[in-house]
Amino acid sequence: VSHVAKLLGIAATIIMPSDAPRAKIEGARANGATVILYDRIKDDREAIGAEIAGRTGAVIVPPYDDPDIMAGQGTVGLEIIEQAGEQGAELDAVIAASSGGGLVAGLAIAVKGLSPRTAVYAGEPAGFDELARSLVSGHPESNAPGATSICDSLQVVRPGKLTFPVNKALLAGSLVVTDDEVRQAMKAAYQHLRLVVEPGGAVPLAALLSRKLDVTGKTFAVVISGGNVDPDVYIEAIRNQAA
Amino acid sequence: VSHVAKLLGIAATIIMPSDAPRAKIEGARANGATVILYDRIKDDREAIGAEIAGRTGAVIVPPYDDPDIMAGQGTVGLEIIEQAGEQGAELDAVIAASSGGGLVAGLAIAVKGLSPRTAVYAGEPAGFDELARSLVSGHPESNAPGATSICDSLQVVRPGKLTFPVNKALLAGSLVVTDDEVRQAMKAAYQHLRLVVEPGGAVPLAALLSRKLDVTGKTFAVVISGGNVDPDVYIEAIRNQAA
Repeated sequence: VSHVAKLLGIAATIIMPSDAPRAKIEGARANGATVILYDRIKDDREAIGAEIAGRTGAVIVPPYDDPDIMAGQGTVGLEIIEQAGEQGAELDAVIAASSGGGLVAGLAIAVKGLSPRTAVYAGEPAGFDELARSLVSGHPESNAPGATSICDSLQVVRPGKLTFPVNKALLAGSLVVTDDEVRQAMKAAYQHLRLVVEPGGAVPLAALLSRKLDVTGKTFAVVISGGNVDPDVYIEAIRNQAA
Repeated sequence: VSHVAKLLGIAATIIMPSDAPRAKIEGARANGATVILYDRIKDDREAIGAEIAGRTGAVIVPPYDDPDIMAGQGTVGLEIIEQAGEQGAELDAVIAASSGGGLVAGLAIAVKGLSPRTAVYAGEPAGFDELARSLVSGHPESNAPGATSICDSLQVVRPGKLTFPVNKALLAGSLVVTDDEVRQAMKAAYQHLRLVVEPGGAVPLAALLSRKLDVTGKTFAVVISGGNVDPDVYIEAIRNQAA
């Protein structure tokens, strides 16, 4: 958001949890955005955003529970199907990370529309597996308070109001991975893809590498998104196993 | 080479200095190649290669002093000019790393052929700046024995026989960077590009960021190549400055 605002020459205020990676906070500030930090436990970020918008006339860009946001994130699914087609690949499954569920919901609409036989899975970190449990029960389930995860970018309390009905209708399931599986995926991206990936962005790759699904003879697409990771967290991950 | 050999289903023997990154050695072995290690000081890798080729009938793929290798590496220059054109950019300069000088020589032929006003610079690590000194003196100069650099992939004794005449005719100069400037460039690639870059691959970016040229108002292309870097070297680089 801060990058696009800079390109368009408009002001941006970004509301971030106070425990967000320094890389993300400083990156937004370097793009000229105003960063407002809130306490993940005590504060209500929607209320903070509504107050600022009411006072300044700013447009609110919500992270997931919005049809335009879901549609925009869904273009990732369009690109996956287009690029798979260019390579002559028929996809058995696509995995994308889920927090509020906007990315995977938008992506699922695009993928299932163009390639109905391709299964779409969410990926979630352990402790923040509200979607996995909600898909099983059929109702929106909340996460227990006090859970922790290295996936700072994938921490919501419950599934989105707009995203959950879409995900309930279209997803084959949600795959849950541990912090250590995430670190191993970050290390694999370092070693084999030469990409710096943040913990939350590595969750789908972690689900694949830790064999949450039977991959034998199958063709998968995995969404790897986000590189806002502070050096201490990254170093712990790439050190985590022998080179 | 090992990756292409694997794709084509043919055998590959890779001759590497014994102090090559483990990531490079293990990567080649993981691709099914036979890796032969030699001592950078005492052994003659050309002799080792000639012996193997004579005994097995293998084709030698030299690292730089070969017209086909230079032409193949030069396709990087074709892509740069094509992609700059697609973005409506007119390049003032292109910087590419140089060791034996094949990449920058091939690239210079392509770039100067398509865009004569674009200056082409080599980038070299301090202690292995044979091309910089050779371009100044007009004759092939050798590096002093005993030099060290974190740029393991950019260490030759003297300019190539075929590459130097091309580089002498076409290059605007060679920019020399220190180990610390290289580490800062690796960190910048981590922070801003989310790319894992090996020390030698970061040399051109280091030359740019440490302002070896006046960049004000100019448009540059920088070749960032190679991600074979062991975690200990990488961790030292991304830790090197505040995030």
